[in-house]
Amino acid sequence: MSEICAAFDEIAGLREKNAITLKVAKDRGRKVVGTYCLFSPVELIVAAGAIPVSLCGTSPTPIPAAEKVLPRSLCPLIKSSYGFALTDTCPFFHFSDLLLAETTCDGKKKMYELLGEMKPLHLMQLPQVQDEAALEYWVLELKRLIGRLEEAFDVKITPEKLAAAILLLNEERRSLKALQDLQKRKPAPISGMDLLTVLHNRGFTVDKREAIDLIDRLTAELTELSEQGISPFTLKTPRILLTGVPVGIGSDKVVRLVEELGGSVVCFESCGAYKKVDPVQPGKDLLRSIAQKYLRVPCSCMSPNKGRLQLLEELVREFEADGVIDLTWQGCHTYNVESFTVKRHLQETVQVPFLQIETDYSESDTEQLKVRIEAFLELIGTRRGGRP
Amino acid sequence: MSEICAAFDEIAGLREKNAITLKVAKDRGRKVVGTYCLFSPVELIVAAGAIPVSLCGTSPTPIPAAEKVLPRSLCPLIKSSYGFALTDTCPFFHFSDLLLAETTCDGKKKMYELLGEMKPLHLMQLPQVQDEAALEYWVLELKRLIGRLEEAFDVKITPEKLAAAILLLNEERRSLKALQDLQKRKPAPISGMDLLTVLHNRGFTVDKREAIDLIDRLTAELTELSEQGISPFTLKTPRILLTGVPVGIGSDKVVRLVEELGGSVVCFESCGAYKKVDPVQPGKDLLRSIAQKYLRVPCSCMSPNKGRLQLLEELVREFEADGVIDLTWQGCHTYNVESFTVKRHLQETVQVPFLQIETDYSESDTEQLKVRIEAFLELIGTRRGGRP
Repeated sequence: MSEICAAFDEIAGLREKNAITLKVAKDRGRKVVGTYCLFSPVELIVAAGAIPVSLCGTSPTPIPAAEKVLPRSLCPLIKSSYGFALTDTCPFFHFSDLLLAETTCDGKKKMYELLGEMKPLHLMQLPQVQDEAALEYWVLELKRLIGRLEEAFDVKITPEKLAAAILLLNEERRSLKALQDLQKRKPAPISGMDLLTVLHNRGFTVDKREAIDLIDRLTAELTELSEQGISPFTLKTPRILLTGVPVGIGSDKVVRLVEELGGSVVCFESCGAYKKVDPVQPGKDLLRSIAQKYLRVPCSCMSPNKGRLQLLEELVREFEADGVIDLTWQGCHTYNVESFTVKRHLQETVQVPFLQIETDYSESDTEQLKVRIEAFLELIGTRRGGRP
Repeated sequence: MSEICAAFDEIAGLREKNAITLKVAKDRGRKVVGTYCLFSPVELIVAAGAIPVSLCGTSPTPIPAAEKVLPRSLCPLIKSSYGFALTDTCPFFHFSDLLLAETTCDGKKKMYELLGEMKPLHLMQLPQVQDEAALEYWVLELKRLIGRLEEAFDVKITPEKLAAAILLLNEERRSLKALQDLQKRKPAPISGMDLLTVLHNRGFTVDKREAIDLIDRLTAELTELSEQGISPFTLKTPRILLTGVPVGIGSDKVVRLVEELGGSVVCFESCGAYKKVDPVQPGKDLLRSIAQKYLRVPCSCMSPNKGRLQLLEELVREFEADGVIDLTWQGCHTYNVESFTVKRHLQETVQVPFLQIETDYSESDTEQLKVRIEAFLELIGTRRGGRP
């Protein structure tokens, strides 16, 4: 994608640049809130005048350090996140004034207890069901967070600031959705690996307005290229939808393998990507609107998690996916158990080939994964060949 | 214990007898509610005129069947529980009219979704924190359960029935505490394995009043034996407190090994044993009193779980434990991560030797465990020898 797309080049260098920008902002008195999860109500952080940064670990590097404290059987994402904190090797963690955490999965929840010994940490009690009583409780949790932010940063979160934050973050979601929806084109205009790089690096931006403009420029440039018939793929390339756990740069093994072996990851149904584009629908009570948006995130920590089945079915149709790969990090019980339900649901509805992969951030199973993914892509090819 | 203690013999044969008693009660129109967790508010089931039965799996037998659906990396307790249901080999599951479940750990929560396809299942949203807002929400969840029980069984749960249920279950807790507190005697009057048999089999009793009397008889007989100087142990036997995951007959490997190797398990800080004896403290609002009692259960699914540290410290002192073994089932992230905090807390307070064991229901690591437990007991012996 490099060389032919200026906006992509700019985004590719963003992570390092942003660490410096964050430092400058800190020196000017801005506060920084580190988040680990899509459930973090970023609107409240923005309305408090603070900078939200994502601290979810996607690199294998700090995992050995984390394993001195955490069990090895935990998922690599949790160990990586904790390892970055423990080794103080992530500038975004380093500059965080407050960590925002939620009771999502067992591993994260218990890891947060240990993180709370390093930095001020605010734990939100996230309900695990999505009914009305849960929503009422979740609204109270949002109010409690407002109290904490106002006290910690000596600010007042006014309805005006909240409304402005909703607008800004919905704009961000709009831009991210437009970019990802480009991949509905056949062939997809950008590789899954490049899309992942964009989504990953964008997560570290300090100025959201600037990031939105950059993503919009990228979308425009890619549209232009696509209309010129430029794509890394052909119409024959198997189109894969990747669902399950979040992936990022450093934990991109499966994406890389799919594309090295001749596939194209056209859609990521995961929290860094398509799960993120659902906007707040502002009603009379803004806080309630925010609460509703976050509570409906179709994460496997919810029980039941019917929203994911619905979303997956829609995405398979809209992106005309030829196959679904359900990625589970080792130790992630919720996505792992839910895979059974997902497979069954897809068989009963869209009937596309399905492959579950359970792996970690290491390269130890790469050869084995190659064989499985190759067979999966071949199956898709055969299926297509058999079509009228 | 057999032959010298009549009450023990009676309890040892209780499990099979109770399956028949349950069938008879069912035929007479009694309803049965299966529970999986100490968080299940049994008072409400009893007040609804139904029979609560524990369905928590402690046998390795049904695990291979469960692994056809559930990931192997889940904890054996969850796989065993699900396997019993799937293979219909547990009479207590078979006779259950309703399953009561709570959002405790990830594995159970997601397993319940699958169980709900086999039997009517009511899921309670258990908060993962123990503050006032969580209590309010938990009270609402108890009310929702009352609604479900009243509708399903066509009964009315009156305040009188609730008060009577509280009395009965507090009596049960009193009897169980008295029995377990006997083990504060030196040497302990009953082996850990025998105590486990009693606690396990008692869990399947249909008539709670009868079970209370039986436990009280056992306590009296054991007191008598102890006063005659009869015990399976000597004053030199290392006294072990077992904390962590629940154990039962079939998942008793570590208890058995400790005692085969010359130790005595004097206290079980786990949900089938000492975590269970905390009574409801009835206030003006009975439902709130019940909610308070259950929300303060010091399970590792709570974050933070300071109550466990407090309880452990007290129990080590009261039972004069020489060492603490923290048992974690493979795949149980919450107890596994919490072990770090538990170890540190015990080092900073009571300063007894600590050993964490991560295992499953199989015998595959028995030889390795023997070596570790033997070394641990030797360490305790050496420490004691060094005392003035």
